[in-house]
Amino acid sequence: MESTKFQPVEGGVCAAKGFAAAGVHCGIRRSQTKPDLALIKAEVRCAGAGCYTTNKVYGAPITVDREHLADGCAQAILVNSGNANTCAPGGVELARATCELAAQALGVAAADVLPSSTGVIGQAMSLEPFAAGIPAAAAKLEASAAGSHAAATAIMTTDTHPKEYAVEFTLGGKPCRIGAIAKGSGMIHPNMATMLLFMTTDVQAEPAVLRKALAEVVPATFNQITVDGDTSTNDTVLLLASGLAGAAVGPDGEGYQTFVAALTQVAEHLSRELAADGEGATKLLECTVTGAPDVLTARAVARSVVHSTLFKAAMFGADANWGRVLCAIGYTPGDFSIDKTSVRLRSRAGEVFVCENAAHRPYSEEEAAKVLAEDEIDILVDLGCGSAAAKAWGCDLTYDYVKINGDYRT
Amino acid sequence: MESTKFQPVEGGVCAAKGFAAAGVHCGIRRSQTKPDLALIKAEVRCAGAGCYTTNKVYGAPITVDREHLADGCAQAILVNSGNANTCAPGGVELARATCELAAQALGVAAADVLPSSTGVIGQAMSLEPFAAGIPAAAAKLEASAAGSHAAATAIMTTDTHPKEYAVEFTLGGKPCRIGAIAKGSGMIHPNMATMLLFMTTDVQAEPAVLRKALAEVVPATFNQITVDGDTSTNDTVLLLASGLAGAAVGPDGEGYQTFVAALTQVAEHLSRELAADGEGATKLLECTVTGAPDVLTARAVARSVVHSTLFKAAMFGADANWGRVLCAIGYTPGDFSIDKTSVRLRSRAGEVFVCENAAHRPYSEEEAAKVLAEDEIDILVDLGCGSAAAKAWGCDLTYDYVKINGDYRT
Repeated sequence: MESTKFQPVEGGVCAAKGFAAAGVHCGIRRSQTKPDLALIKAEVRCAGAGCYTTNKVYGAPITVDREHLADGCAQAILVNSGNANTCAPGGVELARATCELAAQALGVAAADVLPSSTGVIGQAMSLEPFAAGIPAAAAKLEASAAGSHAAATAIMTTDTHPKEYAVEFTLGGKPCRIGAIAKGSGMIHPNMATMLLFMTTDVQAEPAVLRKALAEVVPATFNQITVDGDTSTNDTVLLLASGLAGAAVGPDGEGYQTFVAALTQVAEHLSRELAADGEGATKLLECTVTGAPDVLTARAVARSVVHSTLFKAAMFGADANWGRVLCAIGYTPGDFSIDKTSVRLRSRAGEVFVCENAAHRPYSEEEAAKVLAEDEIDILVDLGCGSAAAKAWGCDLTYDYVKINGDYRT
Repeated sequence: MESTKFQPVEGGVCAAKGFAAAGVHCGIRRSQTKPDLALIKAEVRCAGAGCYTTNKVYGAPITVDREHLADGCAQAILVNSGNANTCAPGGVELARATCELAAQALGVAAADVLPSSTGVIGQAMSLEPFAAGIPAAAAKLEASAAGSHAAATAIMTTDTHPKEYAVEFTLGGKPCRIGAIAKGSGMIHPNMATMLLFMTTDVQAEPAVLRKALAEVVPATFNQITVDGDTSTNDTVLLLASGLAGAAVGPDGEGYQTFVAALTQVAEHLSRELAADGEGATKLLECTVTGAPDVLTARAVARSVVHSTLFKAAMFGADANWGRVLCAIGYTPGDFSIDKTSVRLRSRAGEVFVCENAAHRPYSEEEAAKVLAEDEIDILVDLGCGSAAAKAWGCDLTYDYVKINGDYRT
């Protein structure tokens, strides 16, 4: 279940002071209607940090993002859907050329533009649509909820709806914000799902502080999402801080903790949205592991449960199959005991306690069916051998997943 | 594609000298017709070795198998389907009691009986069906193809057909045999798939030699099968050697190599059969990785490809989606380069060369569709950075997989 410590606010990636966004159609996709180019621009040069896929095969834009963030600063994010610019001839040169175009249109340095792509891999991308699309997007930039919405829409592939979120929190008596847009698991042509996340904030922070905060938040949130276990070649999280709220975040202390908590709330909210909108999904699965010997074990167990194909299929069938939960816990790597494991299944409709000390616990099948008929299921696992906890998010495995990924051509 | 160095022969698990088998229905399952109890008996006390699931949650029979094989000897294998005897109250005691019953019926020591179970987990198993079933099975034991077939049928869950195989080879001028029965991915009630493999041979070998041979063959064959990535709690491979062929196998040398090659052929054949009969499968996928820096990397890459949910769905859709192959190679753990990777897709209908140096290679979509319309697809991956090779087997992801595992109650 979601917990909201900080107040959610409107505005998505434009909620924080100093950020404008836009989305346009420029012809990277064949579709004449679906927007395929998004632009996020900061009023000022921002401190920035990024996290990227661990896949050995990675998109050309990631190479350029690493170069452009080497100095810890950036001022714009340029995102296209329709082509992942991965394993594509001349991809890095093309990504650099798109940054040049954005630099001209926005009046910023090319080295302060961060490119990002999602779509089909292995196909050369043409610069032509960008030449027209970037000035068009630049002309439409809006520091508003509408601007964020247009950008969130332009980065979608088979996502069923755009994903935006923002929160407000207080630092040193000053209101500050973190906002974000995201795209999840989808494909425009047969390809891997890609997670893209663009976050902005108006706190003032050194790049090293942003990197530290991302390094804390990403493993506990975005890395705990699994739709099909395939790690995309283009997964990217970018965070820009404009400093325009007039409040500074240092590398530790109360201010830093508040910032990390707010960033975590944004990341958790979007992680849940990304998992719930996984391809073909009808249910969001949230596994909360408690009583683990350490946090890495807690995270691995939680991921293992929501990643289990058998359990995901059982959830689609609304079957309280705790044996599959236990099985998935059992094959999680790491040295921990399972003898004291308990499992509860919970939703808006109630809770069933199905497994205690790694053994069957009598429960009403009728009650379980009622709980599992909901579209948001919490799986509560207590390992009973420590005090560490973690969450992971996934979705059920459905006919539509197979249809989207196998049957799309027929 | 399968290579057969040694001559396949009839007789399955009874092909080697000294082994009889039977299968009966005794009421562990509710169904009145499906056999649920299998017995394999050796004329003499055999050298034996076993390999078991790495899941931290494992069946009670595995505890007893480890005890009973501690001295390296066994004379009978007792297998039931319908209940996995896992996370079940009193499971170990019950497994021991079934061994006592088998010992009485067969005139062997209880400590020489190896129990094995597959089916639903978390439910208490009753001794009653065994009390009637074991003497019935003992009375039906046959050292024949019919005996093997009856046993192979009794261990099936949702397998669509029984799985048996045997080969003949020559050691020191003497004909020797290895035979086996297997069950794969299926479930009688919502549960995890379980792989059970019972192999017999008439060579004479010390238990340590059998253990060494299994330790070589299992990682290259059975551990390279993936249907849904869920490691069962009950996976078991058992190998018994009667010595009745009059030929000895030592811990190394030519004879040992021949034995391992024959064992590998049996294991590979059954690995292919298990993968091809994966739940809901319409296609067998065999990934052959060459040019790897070492064999562990080769194995991991091959497994990663046939395990990729996205690639499995693409194969169901007969889509030559090499981007998904490359993506799966890229997220395989380990330190290796992907720049020189090539990918070919091959079947009886021909071959398409789809990716060279990790980039798109022009090919005919028509030709690719023809190749992928077949029910056995070879994915040939050359990493181009070494000389190690490995294979892995899997199957496509289909609507029926979701139906079997999610929708079974509706």
